Amino acid sequence: MIRIGIYGYGNLARGVEAAIKKNDDMELVGVFTRRAPETVKINTKGVNVYSANDVIKHKNEIDVLIICGGSMSDLPEMTPELVKSFNVIDSFDTHARIPEHYKNVDKNAMETRHIGVISLGWDPGMFSLNRAIMESILPDGESYTFWGKGVSQGHSDAIRRIKGVLDARQYTIPVDSALEAVRSGKRPNLTTREKHTRLCYVVSSDPKENARIEKEIKEMPNYFADYDTTVNFISMEEMKKNHSGIPHGGFVFRSGETSDGVNHVIEYSLKLDSNPEFTGSVLVAYARGVYRLVKRGECGARTVFDFAPRDISKLSYEDMLAHTL
Amino acid sequence: MIRIGIYGYGNLARGVEAAIKKNDDMELVGVFTRRAPETVKINTKGVNVYSANDVIKHKNEIDVLIICGGSMSDLPEMTPELVKSFNVIDSFDTHARIPEHYKNVDKNAMETRHIGVISLGWDPGMFSLNRAIMESILPDGESYTFWGKGVSQGHSDAIRRIKGVLDARQYTIPVDSALEAVRSGKRPNLTTREKHTRLCYVVSSDPKENARIEKEIKEMPNYFADYDTTVNFISMEEMKKNHSGIPHGGFVFRSGETSDGVNHVIEYSLKLDSNPEFTGSVLVAYARGVYRLVKRGECGARTVFDFAPRDISKLSYEDMLAHTL
Repeated sequence: MIRIGIYGYGNLARGVEAAIKKNDDMELVGVFTRRAPETVKINTKGVNVYSANDVIKHKNEIDVLIICGGSMSDLPEMTPELVKSFNVIDSFDTHARIPEHYKNVDKNAMETRHIGVISLGWDPGMFSLNRAIMESILPDGESYTFWGKGVSQGHSDAIRRIKGVLDARQYTIPVDSALEAVRSGKRPNLTTREKHTRLCYVVSSDPKENARIEKEIKEMPNYFADYDTTVNFISMEEMKKNHSGIPHGGFVFRSGETSDGVNHVIEYSLKLDSNPEFTGSVLVAYARGVYRLVKRGECGARTVFDFAPRDISKLSYEDMLAHTL
Repeated sequence: MIRIGIYGYGNLARGVEAAIKKNDDMELVGVFTRRAPETVKINTKGVNVYSANDVIKHKNEIDVLIICGGSMSDLPEMTPELVKSFNVIDSFDTHARIPEHYKNVDKNAMETRHIGVISLGWDPGMFSLNRAIMESILPDGESYTFWGKGVSQGHSDAIRRIKGVLDARQYTIPVDSALEAVRSGKRPNLTTREKHTRLCYVVSSDPKENARIEKEIKEMPNYFADYDTTVNFISMEEMKKNHSGIPHGGFVFRSGETSDGVNHVIEYSLKLDSNPEFTGSVLVAYARGVYRLVKRGECGARTVFDFAPRDISKLSYEDMLAHTL
C-alpha cells in the first residue's frame, strides 16, 4: 500500500481524498490542517485529522504528501519547506512562476533526497503532457489551448469584489466556431475575443445597481474587457440551485503538416463534472509514480514531463503489453 | 545530429523520410531495401540507397534504424535480428502477438546492449499511451476506442481478392451516435455493429457481377458480416481521382466516476490526412527518445509506455518548464 498524507483540506483535498478511495493500492493515513483539527470533518472513516504544525511527527508514516494549497501564497512557501521532510506533490498553477518554483523545490529535494512534483493537475498537467508530445510529433504546426465550459474561480472572485454583489459565478466558454476552425486543420490566428466568451451569473443586493455592476464587470481590465461578456442577474436561490457545481474542462489541439499540404489534427479534451475531483485524481495517480521513483533512488524536483506511462499505471508491464498497448 | 537509417522503403518509410525533414536535429543517412537499390528512388537528395543485405556494414553510421516492414511476416523476423546490431524502432501492430514479439526483441537487445522499441505509431502507440494514462487517472470507468474515418488496408485487400474486383477501397467509419453517447458520459455498452460502419468503393470488371460481389463482401466473416456495410461501384478513373489518399484517424475515450454521480470524460482524437506520414512522425519523434536512452546506458526492448515526455521533446527541460508546462 502507498501511504498518502493530505496537507490542507479544501475542495482539492476532498478531491484527492475521493481519488484515494478509487485506488486499492493506496491508503490515506492522515489529513493535516491549519485550522483547529477538531473542527475539520473528513470523508474517510478511521483517519485522523492533525494540526499542520505536527506534520513532521508523521514523517515515517507517509510515502507521499499531497499539498493542497493555493498557488498565490501557500505553495511557494509550503512545497519547498515540506519537501525537506517528505516526497511531495503540488498543483502550483501560476505558469509564469513555474521555473522559479521548480528551482526552489529542486534545491531542497536534492539536499534531503526527496522527490517534489510540482504543477500537476490538468493545466498545468495533462494539457502540458499532451502539448509536449503533440509538438514533438508535429514540429511544423500550431498548438491551441481552450478552456471551458467551466467555472473560473479567479473571475468569480473578481466579480464578488464589486460593490453591491452578493455572489457571482463566472463560466469561461470556448467559442464553437473557433474550435471548428482549428479542427478543420486551417490553423487560424485567433484573438483572445475569438477564442472564449465569459458568462456571468450575479446576485446583486439591489436591482437598481444592476446596470452599474454590469458595466463594471464588462469593463474590468485583464479579466473581462478583452472578451464578449454576458451578465445575468439571478436570485440567491437560483445561484445555489443551479450553480453550486465546479465543472470545468477544455481542449488542446495540435494542427501540423508533415509534407506539403498533408495536414493532421490531434485533439485532447476534458469534460469534467468536478474540477477538484479530477485534479485530485491526477495527483493521486502520479503519487504512484513518485513512490516508484523513490524506490529507484531518484530525488529532486519533477513535473509531468518526467513520468513515463508505466510509472503511473497500476497494471504490471506484462498486462500493459497484453491489454493496453 | 541524430543519424537515422530506414530499413524498407514503402509508404511508411516515405512517411519517416518526410518526418526527418521536419526535425532539424535529425538526418537520414541511408535507406536499405530488399529490392535492387538502383531501382529505388527516394525523396532525399544526397542520401544513398543500399541493399538490405549490406545494412550491417553501416552499423557505425546509424544511431537509430527505423524498420518499415509488415507486421504479418516481416517484423517478427527483422526486428529481433536487426536489434543485434542497431538501436531499432518498429511499428508492429498485431496486438495479440505483442508480448511474444517483445520477448524476442528484448532478449537480443539485452545480449547486445541495444534499445529495441516495438509497436510504435498511433494504435498501437499514441492511443496506447493515452489509454494507459486515462485509465490510471480514472480507474473506475470504461475505455472506448473508435477508428476512422479512414482507409483500412486489410479490408481493402480482402475485397480485392474477390473474383471480378479490379480495385477496392474500404473506409472504416465511427458511428456518430455512438461517439455522442460516449461523450455524454453515459458509458454505453456498444456492439461491434453499433460502433463502426464500413463503406466500400469497388471497381468491378463486369457490372453484371456487381450483385454477387456486393453479397460476397457483405457476408464475409470477420471482415464485414458483423457490420453495416455499404458497397458503391465506381469507375477506375473515379477510384484514382477520389480515393488515392490514405487518410485515417480515430478516438480514444475514458469515461469514469470519481465519486457517486460525478463523471468525467477524457477524449483523444486524431484526424490524419496520411496514415503513413503521421505514423512516420511518431517513429521519428521517439527516435530522439531512443538516442537519449542509449546515452543513459539503457538497453532492452521498449514501448511507448517507457518514454517520459521530456525524453522525446526537442526542447530543453528549461524551455519545457517555461513554455510547455
